[in-house]
Amino acid sequence: MTIEVDYRFPPGVDAEKQAQIIAVGQTVGSWNARFAHREQVLKSHLGKVVKGLSEPNGSSIVTIDFPEANTEKDISSLLTMIFGKYSMAGAAKVMAVRLPQNYGSRPKLGIAGIRERLGVFERPLIMAIFKPALGLSADDHATILQEVASAGLDIIKDDEILGDLEVAPTIKRLEACRRVIEQVKQQTGRTVLYAINITGRADKLIEKARYLVREGANALLLNVLTYGFSVLEALAVEPEINVPIFAHPAFAGAICAAPNHGMAYSVVLGTLMAHCGADAVLYPAHYGSLPFEQAEEAKIRDNLRSRDVFPVPSAGIHPGVVPQALADYGPDVILNAGTGIMDHPDGPASGVKAFFEALERLKQGESLEVEKLPVGPLRNALEKWGVK
Amino acid sequence: MTIEVDYRFPPGVDAEKQAQIIAVGQTVGSWNARFAHREQVLKSHLGKVVKGLSEPNGSSIVTIDFPEANTEKDISSLLTMIFGKYSMAGAAKVMAVRLPQNYGSRPKLGIAGIRERLGVFERPLIMAIFKPALGLSADDHATILQEVASAGLDIIKDDEILGDLEVAPTIKRLEACRRVIEQVKQQTGRTVLYAINITGRADKLIEKARYLVREGANALLLNVLTYGFSVLEALAVEPEINVPIFAHPAFAGAICAAPNHGMAYSVVLGTLMAHCGADAVLYPAHYGSLPFEQAEEAKIRDNLRSRDVFPVPSAGIHPGVVPQALADYGPDVILNAGTGIMDHPDGPASGVKAFFEALERLKQGESLEVEKLPVGPLRNALEKWGVK
Repeated sequence: MTIEVDYRFPPGVDAEKQAQIIAVGQTVGSWNARFAHREQVLKSHLGKVVKGLSEPNGSSIVTIDFPEANTEKDISSLLTMIFGKYSMAGAAKVMAVRLPQNYGSRPKLGIAGIRERLGVFERPLIMAIFKPALGLSADDHATILQEVASAGLDIIKDDEILGDLEVAPTIKRLEACRRVIEQVKQQTGRTVLYAINITGRADKLIEKARYLVREGANALLLNVLTYGFSVLEALAVEPEINVPIFAHPAFAGAICAAPNHGMAYSVVLGTLMAHCGADAVLYPAHYGSLPFEQAEEAKIRDNLRSRDVFPVPSAGIHPGVVPQALADYGPDVILNAGTGIMDHPDGPASGVKAFFEALERLKQGESLEVEKLPVGPLRNALEKWGVK
Repeated sequence: MTIEVDYRFPPGVDAEKQAQIIAVGQTVGSWNARFAHREQVLKSHLGKVVKGLSEPNGSSIVTIDFPEANTEKDISSLLTMIFGKYSMAGAAKVMAVRLPQNYGSRPKLGIAGIRERLGVFERPLIMAIFKPALGLSADDHATILQEVASAGLDIIKDDEILGDLEVAPTIKRLEACRRVIEQVKQQTGRTVLYAINITGRADKLIEKARYLVREGANALLLNVLTYGFSVLEALAVEPEINVPIFAHPAFAGAICAAPNHGMAYSVVLGTLMAHCGADAVLYPAHYGSLPFEQAEEAKIRDNLRSRDVFPVPSAGIHPGVVPQALADYGPDVILNAGTGIMDHPDGPASGVKAFFEALERLKQGESLEVEKLPVGPLRNALEKWGVK
């Protein structure tokens, strides 16, 4: 089996030459007569330039085939090979990576498993983020959760920058929020997932994840790019971690945002996450608050879904984007709103209700024109945020 | 204590506005009257814009102070805060990070400890890389090591892309090379370090590192950026791992090479590695085979040395760069050569001897002009590679 990688070079770069440098330099390197006895094996580990094409703007894209046997079938060894030393060699961007089906890990739960945990099978899921991000107490978290959970929320997550801090230690947040989750379950039969942020040194982080799950955590949040793909991979195959892992894209722009360096967002947040065991992956929506290309968002969605990973378009999501999101995604999507729920003029519970009102109206084929809406959560939301 | 971060924005960006977005958006976010009871705590977690200046070319640099209490005093939580979501917000590059002295980890051995292990206190250390990178057997590795070790080499490392592969499993490489290392020790009293590449999922990698050290590994190599800073941090504080950890810069270009995105090389390979427990850090030399700025190299050197971490300029190092390297570094440097040793016209042992010959001549104040050199390893090296 081989791994196919597309590299794009800006105009003026001798792409053919660079492709040879990658195919040889990122695999075996050169050898001389002293290694004649290993000739056949060495050759079997070489990369191959399989295709090159020029784009109208003068850029070039070359495709290199790498032997899968050069890797450990994980993302870390893959990255070291395809863009390790070469990332420092000049302007080049990895635009696509095509991996064998069985490469890496699959999600334990994914779309089907998360839906089963929630008992919600046919509509988009609604997810909120605790705000303010940092500085609330564990009890504040529970109070917020109480409000949004009672309004029908499916999932809540920590803000990604909230670690295991003195102001609200992770286990305290879990304890406080678990009580709310249990109460909601008893009173309504509904499950609410709380993706709690797992942090720390790799060994402690994995240990903490196990501990939190034993203590009742029903979902985890991981900043994959600041902690490491190898950490997600460890969690993904750990049988004790039998809850969905939400992968956060923090730091992705440092790798993906430059035009001629790094790797495309669709590779990092799509392909790599999908082969790394994430159950759901967050990334910017193109109509949100971060600059993001619609085509990249679509590729991420498709890369994730091809392995049953839940797409979670995020950042600047509010009830007014629901029509657009449904058009782009259909029902298999998690709509993740921070301020778009928490800053609703009538409070977080109304923020959640506004989302469900929007979903219900669209399901009934009704319009979201503000003037036609009854007074209530959705109307107030759209008056604040508008409709996309 | 605060963490100071310098962000650079290209011309045309409203730096003042962006600075506010970072200071607030990457910490607490906004809050309303509902959180009046937490006002004081929330304020204490906010970032502060402390300085802004314009550069002659129209770029702007702003400095933000972040409360240390927002982090877990590790690199992963630091990155999530200073450049997590914001990395996706548009063109901005992190140019410097100033951390409190006690932030993160310190090397267990560092410059002093590595010198003590080797019993070499006053000269630069010479390091080689097994080549070809991939496809040799464990016995081939031992054969190469035999040649270079007997010529006086201090340290050898795996190529970074050589993982735990069927063609030469990590433990087999260790067993084969350890026999050579023990033999050299018996015959000459000299220690040779072999930085063996540790790979795998985070949990397995840490376990493997412990196992390899128990089995006699006397140094480790880690691709920090493809495996994760949190993995290095775990190894750095693990008491059983009482051997130096060499940090490899593979993938650094994906984060650092773009002009207006990501983070400066001196931050990632200098500051962060130095606060993360690496004992020695590899990075491109500006006169080597990769494009690299002299000023960045100097900053990395200084950042590393400020915490007793061994600088290891690499990529395109050969005996002809020794005068330049000595001028830039003085004795506290590890000169790391791959093909610059392995591809010496007379073989790897001569590659090592050429380095020592160069060091000795420079120590004696003698010239490296090719015509004045006696026939031998150095002359043959310089005839092939020239003098920088």
